[in-house]
Amino acid sequence: ASKKIHAAPPLVLCGGFVMLIVLGMLLLKLPFASTQSIGWMQSLFTATSAVTVTGLVVVDTGSAFTLFGQLVIAILIQLGGLGLMTFAVVTLLALGGKIGFLQQTIAKEAFNQTDTSTLVSTAKSVLWFSLIVESIGMLILTLYWSAELGWKTSLLHGFFYTISAFNNAGFALSPDSLMPYVADPVINLTITALFITGGLGFSVWMELWRKRCWNKLSLYSRLMLTGTLLINVIALLAIYWIEYDNPATLGALSSCGKWLAAWFQAVTPRTAGFNTLAIHQLEDATTALTLLLMFIGGGSLSTASGIKVVTFMVLVLATYSFLRRDGAVTAFGRTIPTGTVQKALALTVISVGVTWISIFLLLITEQAAFIDVVFEAVSALGTVGLSRGLTASLSPAGELIIIILMFMGRLGPLTLAYFLASPRSRTIAYPESRLAVG
Amino acid sequence: ASKKIHAAPPLVLCGGFVMLIVLGMLLLKLPFASTQSIGWMQSLFTATSAVTVTGLVVVDTGSAFTLFGQLVIAILIQLGGLGLMTFAVVTLLALGGKIGFLQQTIAKEAFNQTDTSTLVSTAKSVLWFSLIVESIGMLILTLYWSAELGWKTSLLHGFFYTISAFNNAGFALSPDSLMPYVADPVINLTITALFITGGLGFSVWMELWRKRCWNKLSLYSRLMLTGTLLINVIALLAIYWIEYDNPATLGALSSCGKWLAAWFQAVTPRTAGFNTLAIHQLEDATTALTLLLMFIGGGSLSTASGIKVVTFMVLVLATYSFLRRDGAVTAFGRTIPTGTVQKALALTVISVGVTWISIFLLLITEQAAFIDVVFEAVSALGTVGLSRGLTASLSPAGELIIIILMFMGRLGPLTLAYFLASPRSRTIAYPESRLAVG
Ligand SMILES: [K+]
Ligand SMILES: [K+]
Repeated sequence: ASKKIHAAPPLVLCGGFVMLIVLGMLLLKLPFASTQSIGWMQSLFTATSAVTVTGLVVVDTGSAFTLFGQLVIAILIQLGGLGLMTFAVVTLLALGGKIGFLQQTIAKEAFNQTDTSTLVSTAKSVLWFSLIVESIGMLILTLYWSAELGWKTSLLHGFFYTISAFNNAGFALSPDSLMPYVADPVINLTITALFITGGLGFSVWMELWRKRCWNKLSLYSRLMLTGTLLINVIALLAIYWIEYDNPATLGALSSCGKWLAAWFQAVTPRTAGFNTLAIHQLEDATTALTLLLMFIGGGSLSTASGIKVVTFMVLVLATYSFLRRDGAVTAFGRTIPTGTVQKALALTVISVGVTWISIFLLLITEQAAFIDVVFEAVSALGTVGLSRGLTASLSPAGELIIIILMFMGRLGPLTLAYFLASPRSRTIAYPESRLAVG
Repeated sequence: ASKKIHAAPPLVLCGGFVMLIVLGMLLLKLPFASTQSIGWMQSLFTATSAVTVTGLVVVDTGSAFTLFGQLVIAILIQLGGLGLMTFAVVTLLALGGKIGFLQQTIAKEAFNQTDTSTLVSTAKSVLWFSLIVESIGMLILTLYWSAELGWKTSLLHGFFYTISAFNNAGFALSPDSLMPYVADPVINLTITALFITGGLGFSVWMELWRKRCWNKLSLYSRLMLTGTLLINVIALLAIYWIEYDNPATLGALSSCGKWLAAWFQAVTPRTAGFNTLAIHQLEDATTALTLLLMFIGGGSLSTASGIKVVTFMVLVLATYSFLRRDGAVTAFGRTIPTGTVQKALALTVISVGVTWISIFLLLITEQAAFIDVVFEAVSALGTVGLSRGLTASLSPAGELIIIILMFMGRLGPLTLAYFLASPRSRTIAYPESRLAVG
């Protein structure tokens, strides 16, 4: 006896995020949530940044918010990161109601999954998986930090950083993020393991768990795993090489510290957003690489955003197959449908378009260097949260633009584009016409 | 009895350009070509910039080269702009030989034309059209400049600027380009008319001449004309609005001068490359707009480069049709074939990839601001020739990167990509596989 939801899935997803953001804004505006006076705009910005798991901040999370405020932020991150839909499905299940067709459609959209029969078990697996990974992460971090910070603080830090890392949120409790731990192997490896695990996407982990054999994996998982490996290795080597002599970044570190810091900086842009190096002191070439990594992002159905690794892979494969004059786009002995290529194209065009327009507007509203503005916009749309320092000095108009970008980035360009164009069923087939491009 | 050419069209096109550049480099290195000592690199850079109709310069064309040197540059521009193939076809014809199948294939590639029967008449029309338009332009400019410069100089200027404008080369005889004429209606309108005419592409003009009716025009011409109109009007209004109060650009001009200067700055990035305003003093928002315009470029089979207006339109239409959930990409009652959409995608991915890699490399080789490097790379690949001032201070490695970019930009990314991947004929059809993107 479930109530019918008459709204379309993207509308529900969008509405859910808006409600969560508004709720978060109100909670963070409570007098006992902050240690200082927080404006409505700052509160809205923080709530949006948390729900969209971005991590851009206009006030320092560690000093401006009380324990209550920090817990609100952690919960917003967890709800936003895991996805409202996981919770919706599980809640409906917990309430004993059967989930109706429309809810199934919504959940299908949310999970990128077509098989409705496995939907509920999928949602459960997602929750269990998150719980287990986060428990392990929290245990390691709390134990490690207890010597340095004492049990009480280390418990809070372990809890907060685990949620922030696994959900690729990048919120930190100090303004310099994880810079004090730049050469610390435990923090580096635990935090990166958490956000890579979350950013790879649940479907890949589930498949790995069930099939345990490369050849049995789906095309999606194989593309995702090879893409992630390739991108991470290339980024690691490039950053290690470029920053090796930079006294403000790797220059001062030990040999082992150099590799750890380069590794962290290679993987954090997609789309964790913590930093162990001073972002504004990276070489410009590293910044250009970071921009690309932030734009690509992580996995579909994950806690990461961006155009997604597999979208990027499809673009590259489609280009390659065109050059080879293949009739079809193929990978690992499978053909990628034309519709998928078109979807990847549409998504990328919209992402580039939104990024360009927001950069254009920010260059008008802000008095800042071009590179800082470009970095901020790409970081917001990719819900990355890295910044060259512009966030705190944004004008109100600029803050609004970044809020909209974070929101669009987390919902995904296609969900938002849903509102821009309504589908029509074509009845007339137009004749094909040859056309010169390029 | 024509000799067989066994090389593939892209190879011939590429080889022709290389030969022309080497010839130009040698001619410009002759002692009586320059008024000062010109190095091999400077000579190569200038020849490449001329043949690829880019207009980026490492030495001032007006003062560093003699009349002979300037004439060599003008001829390189004319040959590079009109296309080697026009000349090849016409030369073969003039020699009385019948053009063989392979030459036809080459010319087809060069003209983007499929009907081989009209090929020779097309090549003739191109030449006549260029001759007539350039004669008119030269007449106007020479007459206008004669009062100011005297007959001898005005004849040289009329000749040089007409060729440079019609071929979208952007070479000027003074280091400040056309800045002294920022509010001059005759120079503004003549020069923009010349480069817009050249940049629209011959096929559009021929169709307009023959059909004289909008509804009879091909899909290509309609997309090209509407796209050009839309882009130019939007750019004009945006630049007028953004720069209105900028004392270094429009601020000091009269009302009429403001419109003329905004118009010039709106149309020159696609891909003429003259400037009447100081490029490095434009607002950052105008710079962002200019970057986009430079990337888009002009028409196919024209003297302009870039990804081309119709490629851009196809990307936008494909995205729109995906959002509308149309089965096909349509425009003006015609369906755009899937292969064309895939070609547009491949071309754009390659262009973005090449641009990104060159920016990355330039950021390593050059000590320059991020925005200057981005601008220089996009300008070179689009063979635009606008610069924020980096060209003259490039390192040898940077000069080489820009030379390669100009060359790739003029040949077109697809021609060069031809060398990267050889075609194969697929015999195995792989099964389709669903794939999540975004
Ligand atoms: K993030
Ligand atoms: K040019």
